[in-house]
Amino acid sequence: MTLTGDLLIGGGRVPATAGTMKAFNPATGEFIEPEFAFGGPAEVDRALRLADEAYDSYSRTGLEERALFLELIADKLEAVKDELAARTSLETGLPAAQFEGEAVRTAGVFRKFAAVVRQGRFLQAAIDPAQPDRQPTPRMDHRLQKVALGPVAIFGASNFPISYSVAGGDTASALAAGCPVVLKAHNAHPGASEIEGRIIQEAVAESGLHPGVFALVRGPGNEIGEALVDHPLVKAVTFTGSEAGGMALYRRAQQRPDPIPVFTEMTSVNPTFVLPAALAARGAEIGTGLVQRGMYNVGQACLKPAVLLAVEGPGYAELREAAVTEVAKWDARPMLTPGIHDAYTRNAQRHQDNGAVRLGEGTAPEDGAYGQALLLEVTGEQLLAEPTLREEVFGPTLLLVKLSSSEQLLEAARAFRGQLSATLHADAADRTTAEALLPVLERRTGRIVFNAFSIPQEVSYATTHGGPFPATSDSRFTSVGMGAIERFIRPVTYQNFPDELLPQALRDGNPLGLWRLVDGELAR
Amino acid sequence: MTLTGDLLIGGGRVPATAGTMKAFNPATGEFIEPEFAFGGPAEVDRALRLADEAYDSYSRTGLEERALFLELIADKLEAVKDELAARTSLETGLPAAQFEGEAVRTAGVFRKFAAVVRQGRFLQAAIDPAQPDRQPTPRMDHRLQKVALGPVAIFGASNFPISYSVAGGDTASALAAGCPVVLKAHNAHPGASEIEGRIIQEAVAESGLHPGVFALVRGPGNEIGEALVDHPLVKAVTFTGSEAGGMALYRRAQQRPDPIPVFTEMTSVNPTFVLPAALAARGAEIGTGLVQRGMYNVGQACLKPAVLLAVEGPGYAELREAAVTEVAKWDARPMLTPGIHDAYTRNAQRHQDNGAVRLGEGTAPEDGAYGQALLLEVTGEQLLAEPTLREEVFGPTLLLVKLSSSEQLLEAARAFRGQLSATLHADAADRTTAEALLPVLERRTGRIVFNAFSIPQEVSYATTHGGPFPATSDSRFTSVGMGAIERFIRPVTYQNFPDELLPQALRDGNPLGLWRLVDGELAR
Repeated sequence: MTLTGDLLIGGGRVPATAGTMKAFNPATGEFIEPEFAFGGPAEVDRALRLADEAYDSYSRTGLEERALFLELIADKLEAVKDELAARTSLETGLPAAQFEGEAVRTAGVFRKFAAVVRQGRFLQAAIDPAQPDRQPTPRMDHRLQKVALGPVAIFGASNFPISYSVAGGDTASALAAGCPVVLKAHNAHPGASEIEGRIIQEAVAESGLHPGVFALVRGPGNEIGEALVDHPLVKAVTFTGSEAGGMALYRRAQQRPDPIPVFTEMTSVNPTFVLPAALAARGAEIGTGLVQRGMYNVGQACLKPAVLLAVEGPGYAELREAAVTEVAKWDARPMLTPGIHDAYTRNAQRHQDNGAVRLGEGTAPEDGAYGQALLLEVTGEQLLAEPTLREEVFGPTLLLVKLSSSEQLLEAARAFRGQLSATLHADAADRTTAEALLPVLERRTGRIVFNAFSIPQEVSYATTHGGPFPATSDSRFTSVGMGAIERFIRPVTYQNFPDELLPQALRDGNPLGLWRLVDGELAR
Repeated sequence: MTLTGDLLIGGGRVPATAGTMKAFNPATGEFIEPEFAFGGPAEVDRALRLADEAYDSYSRTGLEERALFLELIADKLEAVKDELAARTSLETGLPAAQFEGEAVRTAGVFRKFAAVVRQGRFLQAAIDPAQPDRQPTPRMDHRLQKVALGPVAIFGASNFPISYSVAGGDTASALAAGCPVVLKAHNAHPGASEIEGRIIQEAVAESGLHPGVFALVRGPGNEIGEALVDHPLVKAVTFTGSEAGGMALYRRAQQRPDPIPVFTEMTSVNPTFVLPAALAARGAEIGTGLVQRGMYNVGQACLKPAVLLAVEGPGYAELREAAVTEVAKWDARPMLTPGIHDAYTRNAQRHQDNGAVRLGEGTAPEDGAYGQALLLEVTGEQLLAEPTLREEVFGPTLLLVKLSSSEQLLEAARAFRGQLSATLHADAADRTTAEALLPVLERRTGRIVFNAFSIPQEVSYATTHGGPFPATSDSRFTSVGMGAIERFIRPVTYQNFPDELLPQALRDGNPLGLWRLVDGELAR
């Protein structure tokens, strides 16, 4: 595929109206061809008018037709995986092999959402039949299904240029829900974005869908994102990125005359608690595992186990030593963007200024854009006294917390803000402490992991990638896993309808063969 | 029950700290004994600290225990229904018989939520078993259930002093979800609020639950509501009332350091579309029905069919004449509060200042607090040109819209903001127009009613009482019906857990006998 750098709107390519940019290779510090177009509010407006036009037909596609469309995107994603991986590697400084895997896994996500669409259970069809003889008042027939919200604005994330970007899980779940998508591409990987966007655009055309079903826009600074969030035809927004960026969009959307749902996935340190018996039994193994998982994607992962807490005692020294040994094996690596690298350096220094002791580090940085692995340590007292030590350092820094007692462990657990995940390493002898800790963690996180690390991320029905603020802006939803579709649908009740005017999912005789809730009982 | 006027916090009665008030009888214009206590931020803080304390135990109550608690509230509501109806009638000027029915129906809502709790399907248990041999990476065991958000602040509504107030559907659904409730009582019916609050307080005590599970607060002006919405321990807010009031709370909550879900149900004119064949066949019947349902609760109902639209043609004159005849039968009636009456008079006048013609009216007002029934008419051109004609007049005013064509009918349908419901009267010969209109309505409303009126409200699994803004602040939820519980729960994933540490709902062998999603398929 020859990259053209154009925006993708209405099934066609749209040249720059607001300047251009080039991709940056953080491994070499060089800019890469070609020039990528920037657009502005006019392009956002055009994309959204088309998306709005597309809504009526796209949201009413048959389940099989929509599933086939998602599978076509999956096929195309697999077909371009080598090219996509090579370009993404250039734009991120991360290994191409990682992105081949990411492309295949993300194609799998589209296939899983195709299965969700075919099952049709996401429609949550419910039927309360008429009860004409009920006393004191008869009951009319009521039938409910979920419908698509409308055009969705999706902000591509910087850190996973496939799975959380243009052809990522947000797009898959919004398209599965029946929502047209206007995608704001992240400027850290414009070439990867174009490849992904063009295959979706092709799939839209080959599936005979309205060309407004998908658009890709890009712009300098914040203006294009603000135009998206402000646009009256946008009905939902998703964003994955920093707390500052996410909250700016969130608060802006809430100031619209008509507020819309905004799901932002922002920040998490994914605290890992190691209880005494587990620490004594396998401290070294946990210390090694911590660093290995923590360094994944150069520490630029939402599920990075950034903070490990353990009561000082048997095994703690071994854990620390193993972590120091492991971190020394990590080369400095290019970070996603120079801006992310600068923030990383600043935030890692902030931890040290706030008393974190440097236990170990990776090899020296090759140059200014490379992030050096760091292992820091604080005491429980320090963690409790200084809130910023409980905040994320996006990049390859890990923090050990040496606690003085089980009581302090519980106190520390209570001090964290909302998290995407928390991890518990515990053996049978730790059961009492584990049982005391679990309710504390459950209140603060969307996922609890037991005796394992939460990376790699599993995309399945029981996945939660969400959690209380600031992990996300709405803990009732997940951005990964089959439940992600629920961000984009709303209930509609059809009351006293003749069968022929009802949506297929709600008709007598259950022509789609769905699981439906009939008078409160599941049936099909 | 002897009313004491106290606030209800922590299982006890709390006297006034910020002055007192008396209830007002809008039928007689007289104040009624006793004095009711006002509290302030200190009482809110106390209630929320207790609610937060109660969360850990209450959110973990067994399903049977929680269901029995809800049924106990239902029993108590039925037991006090005569006393509650009599007091509510005094405080609203509406007939006691209406409130006996409302008390019984609302007890039914608690019983229905008890059934929802017993079924346990709201936990949405999902299990993706481990696949240790999967290639290229094994899958860990993932299990998901929904958990309660935390303490919920509920604002009692003015217009249904039982079903949307202290012991109403919001409270039933939040308690069913496992959330403690802090209820801000509406000052329009403090006696009804006390009766309802005390039976819940009794039920909490008799069920052996933590006394923080329920509290009732009351205050002058906005301060107490603001303290509630701002409090760091509140995890969700629900409100039913005006757009101005709802949006003030909504925007305030979004300005918290940690935004929380706020569900506000605000305003809807529930447009009724009468298509030509239906109009010709039964115009008079529809005109009579419109007024009869429109006058329910003195026009102070969220589902009031406030605006009826029809293309001028055979049957229109009959519809109009029948409506004029019917409206003339309606006495002026006391409205809920003098403030609501004033706003009603002002808004009905606004319609007329904006060109609405007075077709008919009820009998003359007895005095200043009584609302007079009004039937107004505008043309389609007028409705399209003047946005306020598409807005709610809360009270017994109905607006007929005489359209010039089917095209104008579609244009008018597109002009409305989001609605709780829309109604379609259509016969077989109207099918083409109906099929063109339905997608337009579906985008703008949470419920479409066919050849019927949407009052009375049915509380069931297929109920949606929600809709796009400004009907509600989040169209993905409903405030009435079994789905209302979803406002108060969030997913948590337990990854790689030993069976004995899992919540009951997720354990091997399915000890609770729930429907669960196992590897994407429903099973039990």
